[in-house]
Amino acid sequence: METSDTPEKAPTAIASKSWEEAAADPQYRAAVVDLLGVLAYGELAAFERLAEDAKLAPNLADKAELVAMASAEFQHFDALSRRLTHIDEDPTRAMEPFVASLDEFHRQTAPSDWLEGLIKAYVGDSIASDFYREVAVRLDADSSRLVLDVLDDTGHSNFVVEKVRAAIEADPRVGGRLALWARRLMGEALSQAQRVVADRDALSTMLVGGVADGFDLAEVGRMFSRITEAHTKRMAALGLAA
Amino acid sequence: METSDTPEKAPTAIASKSWEEAAADPQYRAAVVDLLGVLAYGELAAFERLAEDAKLAPNLADKAELVAMASAEFQHFDALSRRLTHIDEDPTRAMEPFVASLDEFHRQTAPSDWLEGLIKAYVGDSIASDFYREVAVRLDADSSRLVLDVLDDTGHSNFVVEKVRAAIEADPRVGGRLALWARRLMGEALSQAQRVVADRDALSTMLVGGVADGFDLAEVGRMFSRITEAHTKRMAALGLAA
Repeated sequence: METSDTPEKAPTAIASKSWEEAAADPQYRAAVVDLLGVLAYGELAAFERLAEDAKLAPNLADKAELVAMASAEFQHFDALSRRLTHIDEDPTRAMEPFVASLDEFHRQTAPSDWLEGLIKAYVGDSIASDFYREVAVRLDADSSRLVLDVLDDTGHSNFVVEKVRAAIEADPRVGGRLALWARRLMGEALSQAQRVVADRDALSTMLVGGVADGFDLAEVGRMFSRITEAHTKRMAALGLAA
Repeated sequence: METSDTPEKAPTAIASKSWEEAAADPQYRAAVVDLLGVLAYGELAAFERLAEDAKLAPNLADKAELVAMASAEFQHFDALSRRLTHIDEDPTRAMEPFVASLDEFHRQTAPSDWLEGLIKAYVGDSIASDFYREVAVRLDADSSRLVLDVLDDTGHSNFVVEKVRAAIEADPRVGGRLALWARRLMGEALSQAQRVVADRDALSTMLVGGVADGFDLAEVGRMFSRITEAHTKRMAALGLAA
């Protein structure tokens, strides 16, 4: 399973193309617009949840940390949204198809306390990073650079690791509860992701590196497996048996 | 009343001093720490309210605008907070004395719909700008630069003017309701500001340019008058008789 940590190489030389060259293919263009749309709404929704969850903070310093994460998500949203405008797409229209899935994810996973909120922030940030990295290798040079730039800006979640470890040390039973919670988060994320994959053909085809009509569902499954494995390792490192 | 629009000149040559020189006076130092603390918590609380009020947005584009304002408030918070750390003060401790007043202000003025939220964002942003400008002239060169830098970054609220004008055009009765609301916002803001002034001697003394024991309450009143007048003019320009 060692090699499954690495995103698969893209089968085409897409990475050497500029956006203008690559977007001449309307299916590719549609896929990237979908991708930027789902990422943009993902960041906007994450902003809202983090801003909301910051209310659960036990003190001002912790609140400021979560608010800093929220603000970083907004910066990501802003970069993605400006990119959509730059390629003559309406950001709102690009985001619309993904609103229901992402809102549903957040509705299903509203944290009931501060620690659950921290875990969610950490898990969300990490899964997003993994997904950005997976997808960057399948994109033209310009889109890839944007996605990696946005990704590069994360890392705000390091403070979560400290806080969660301290909480488990203080009360080991907390670990069991949070491990369940982390599993539930991943389950809901996968379930909504599968819904998006089923709905959006062009996006899904691109994600698996396909160019023909239809796509390889097994390859989507393998991408989800890699992300799940990375999640499991992170949770173990955090002291949570996932 | 013409001249009352301009902040009064500071009576001392404080503006020509660096922070190190000025902060040798412990009362001045305490006043600036208070000031940075109240501004920082003001920005943090504004972030939270804007993020919350963004939920009332009728569409994604409007939501993104309010979220952009929230994110700007966070950047201000961050700059003020880093400044406090830089001068060896704990940002949390500096903010604590102002939490109750600012939270109470926001509790008393939770918008009941999107337009009320917009007006509040606009009024809040504008009053904050006025206050920053008033206070900048009373500060040492380094603190003044910081305050003006933070101020310079605003201006996100221009989109509010359009939206509110359009709403009043569509239904003139909206104007009456929003005018009342704007008046209430200003009333609550003044009432909480007076509470802060009464509680924090060093800060109040600095605000009125005093250096002795005690301060001139009438001069604080004049500062509040200037800010209220500017507010009234803005509301009139918006089509709201304040």
